[in-house]
Amino acid sequence: MANTSGKLQELKNILAEVSDLERAAALLEWDQETYMPPGGVQSRSEQFSTLLRLAHVRFTSDAVGGLLDDLEDELGGRPYDSDEASLMRVTRRDYDQARRLPADLVSEAARAGSVAQPHWQKARKESNFSLFAPYLEKNVELNRRIADALGYQERPYDALLDRYEPGMKTADLEAIFEELKRAIVPLIADIARNADAIDDRVLHKGFDPDLQLAYAADLVKRLGYDMERGRQDLSTHPFSSAFGPGDARITTRVSRDFFNECLFGSIHESGHAMYNQGMGQDIDRTPLWGGASPGVHESQSRLWENLVGRSRPFWRHFFPSLRATFPEPLHGVDEEVFYRAVNRSYPSFIRVEADEVTYNMHVLLRFELENEMLEGTLKVKDLPEAWNSRVKSYLGLNVTNDREGALQDIHWSSVSFGIFPGYTIGNLVGAQLMEKARQDLPDLDSQVERGDFAPLLGWLRRSVHRHGRKFTPNELLERATGKPLTAAPWIAYVRQKFGALYALQKVPS
Amino acid sequence: MANTSGKLQELKNILAEVSDLERAAALLEWDQETYMPPGGVQSRSEQFSTLLRLAHVRFTSDAVGGLLDDLEDELGGRPYDSDEASLMRVTRRDYDQARRLPADLVSEAARAGSVAQPHWQKARKESNFSLFAPYLEKNVELNRRIADALGYQERPYDALLDRYEPGMKTADLEAIFEELKRAIVPLIADIARNADAIDDRVLHKGFDPDLQLAYAADLVKRLGYDMERGRQDLSTHPFSSAFGPGDARITTRVSRDFFNECLFGSIHESGHAMYNQGMGQDIDRTPLWGGASPGVHESQSRLWENLVGRSRPFWRHFFPSLRATFPEPLHGVDEEVFYRAVNRSYPSFIRVEADEVTYNMHVLLRFELENEMLEGTLKVKDLPEAWNSRVKSYLGLNVTNDREGALQDIHWSSVSFGIFPGYTIGNLVGAQLMEKARQDLPDLDSQVERGDFAPLLGWLRRSVHRHGRKFTPNELLERATGKPLTAAPWIAYVRQKFGALYALQKVPS
Repeated sequence: MANTSGKLQELKNILAEVSDLERAAALLEWDQETYMPPGGVQSRSEQFSTLLRLAHVRFTSDAVGGLLDDLEDELGGRPYDSDEASLMRVTRRDYDQARRLPADLVSEAARAGSVAQPHWQKARKESNFSLFAPYLEKNVELNRRIADALGYQERPYDALLDRYEPGMKTADLEAIFEELKRAIVPLIADIARNADAIDDRVLHKGFDPDLQLAYAADLVKRLGYDMERGRQDLSTHPFSSAFGPGDARITTRVSRDFFNECLFGSIHESGHAMYNQGMGQDIDRTPLWGGASPGVHESQSRLWENLVGRSRPFWRHFFPSLRATFPEPLHGVDEEVFYRAVNRSYPSFIRVEADEVTYNMHVLLRFELENEMLEGTLKVKDLPEAWNSRVKSYLGLNVTNDREGALQDIHWSSVSFGIFPGYTIGNLVGAQLMEKARQDLPDLDSQVERGDFAPLLGWLRRSVHRHGRKFTPNELLERATGKPLTAAPWIAYVRQKFGALYALQKVPS
Repeated sequence: MANTSGKLQELKNILAEVSDLERAAALLEWDQETYMPPGGVQSRSEQFSTLLRLAHVRFTSDAVGGLLDDLEDELGGRPYDSDEASLMRVTRRDYDQARRLPADLVSEAARAGSVAQPHWQKARKESNFSLFAPYLEKNVELNRRIADALGYQERPYDALLDRYEPGMKTADLEAIFEELKRAIVPLIADIARNADAIDDRVLHKGFDPDLQLAYAADLVKRLGYDMERGRQDLSTHPFSSAFGPGDARITTRVSRDFFNECLFGSIHESGHAMYNQGMGQDIDRTPLWGGASPGVHESQSRLWENLVGRSRPFWRHFFPSLRATFPEPLHGVDEEVFYRAVNRSYPSFIRVEADEVTYNMHVLLRFELENEMLEGTLKVKDLPEAWNSRVKSYLGLNVTNDREGALQDIHWSSVSFGIFPGYTIGNLVGAQLMEKARQDLPDLDSQVERGDFAPLLGWLRRSVHRHGRKFTPNELLERATGKPLTAAPWIAYVRQKFGALYALQKVPS
């Protein structure tokens, strides 16, 4: 036992060092997106890759493997949710996954990404897919080789998906996404027919940027984002990153001519940051610290952004102070008009600008196309055609150029198949958690209407945040809601909300 | 030869990795002083010490020693100022110095510093030296053990001084400091008798902080500080730090009620930053990159702050725009009054607030006291008395409490004897370089008066900046000015400038 505790400490020391290196790398990245002067690019990329390389070398060392071998028999037998058993289980999973990838393949994939990215940029700029096609072909091949190296039982995509969403299976996602499609494609068409029901011109009436930033910072604090352990800065693309339980930051951007960008962006990122702020101190500097998966992380940002931040009780609480802050653009606008405006839904070409209803369709088509390219049933050269026909059938739109079509995302310029599903998983998990939270907190709506967000945040802390990476997404959902991932709560939610908004039914007060 | 170039590359790869880790650590520190939220302290100190520990372990590894052994015969024979011979020489010096310190002693010293610092803070707050004395005694003993471990021929202080100012000898500094004392103590007394000759109340008339920051940022750009490869932020204590040749930043602070703080602080830090921006790309990510010593670094900041920034030609150029920016506080003030105000000299208790003439006296007494404590001729318990009597004799002031006396600096709360002399070395080197620059650039004053700083900056780049750490301070001075360190140029400069300012002689136009 003395031997065990000595070895456990030794393992924890190595893991803490790895965590310090990764967090330092994350700060380097934060700085690069916020304050770094243009001249810093070259040195920064050297520093960043040195830190990540050292972290990788240390984590995949034989020392870690040996300590896991020595410790997991004894510690792995402790209760499943104990810190010790979880540390063994999750560290083993990460370790085996990292060791299965040959160093050569990892660097070949990294290099392929650096080479492809400028070609993707050029192709997108010129809206000419053929300029990018050879690089995408190479990336598809590398994704295939990575899947082979990692190993899988049924589908090559399983291996890639598991890197981001542990335990998730391609076939299960396909079934869930089919269900989504059956429910949402008709809803999107219905909404399109009633497009005139919502007028969102008020959002474009000119909101002073400094006031927007101050209002957003104050609002996210009221939700429960602790600014003593975080901060808000500007960046071109909003993001959230954490360098420890006491330092989880958000960035935002602001546009005078479009209100949603700053406020809903800030709420979204603070959802991520509150997750990071809620992780247990006891799992700090171990592989248990962090989000259960990108999808679960996204559930926290989308829950606050949409299920809370675009709800009627939310605006019942905040609209008076919003109108006091922006009397000119909101002159003559009432709470109901504003609530409807921020919920306008309409099919569009660009994923990152998509609204709550249509967003998942963008993800779904990418998931399908990644699978088909990986399995060889879709040739890279035929991608734009496949893309365009799916946009037509899911969103009812005719894509007229690849810039707004198959070339719009940066993701495929690197070797990263398997990331996209997380965005939809986030939406579904958010709704599934919210359904349960409503059962456990029957007064939730009136709490939100009073500006009392502590009960909801407390529920999320207990059910999700404090566990960090202890559980896989499905384990976490089973524990929190009694079920693995399901689309039903999200479908019910959008049907009800957007049915009401667009069918012009009388809205309950 | 193929073998040599292979091994040289291997050595450079390790050194580049060490440089990346140290620069990442420097960014962590920059962030801590500028933007980090309060909650980040704990994680940040873990990350910082992990990065520095890994850098130290890597640099002091047997691998580096072996590569140096293999390479220095062949490469060390190349021309003294070649990149290869310099790399061998400087890396060997750093390596041997680092290896001579036992790891136990290094960590004991680090721990002693962490333990002592809160006691120093408390002692200073209560102005009670006896609360700090036992910790200072421990630190003196550790300084002694470090000197013994490093080794020295004549004086224990030589070993400590060499860590910061390579090649500098205690006895040489003593002779230089004696010369300074003989010249400056009477000058200080003369100035004190004519104190009324300068009125600096204009500096306290209330200058809008935002305008001060903008004016300072614009001014340092005009000096040659490249903001595409740097930036200016706020921090409690101004500093400069560099994370590569393309990213050398400054911080500043601003006070509505005291003009000097922001502008002269910004000029000072931009002097450091321009040095870092001027180092050759060819020595990037090697031990040759960086300042030749803290003293030489300080020469660049003090040269721009005082020899340029407090000169008459400088204000002939900038005063019109300054008055246009701050019409209210500068109402009725002319260039001459302003020039005199920013050059007011008077004895004071606190080193960091001291003016150009008196500053070196503060350094000198610390240098003397460190030596005496280290050699045992002064007991720690007698430090305040020794301090106070020296302040009386050098500055003519009666110290009435230890808070403004022996407890004022943070330095002695850690194990760091040997740092103080660099501040005075900086002043002397600055004047010595400037004397030579004036010979080489006979039109310097009129260039400055026209706001053309490029010739001076170019001269500094060629003579100092591009060499990084290739040469020791004295080697650098010999190459640039034909002489090792001497006090004569600085003494001549202050005698002339302050003689004119305070004897109310007619000032040449």
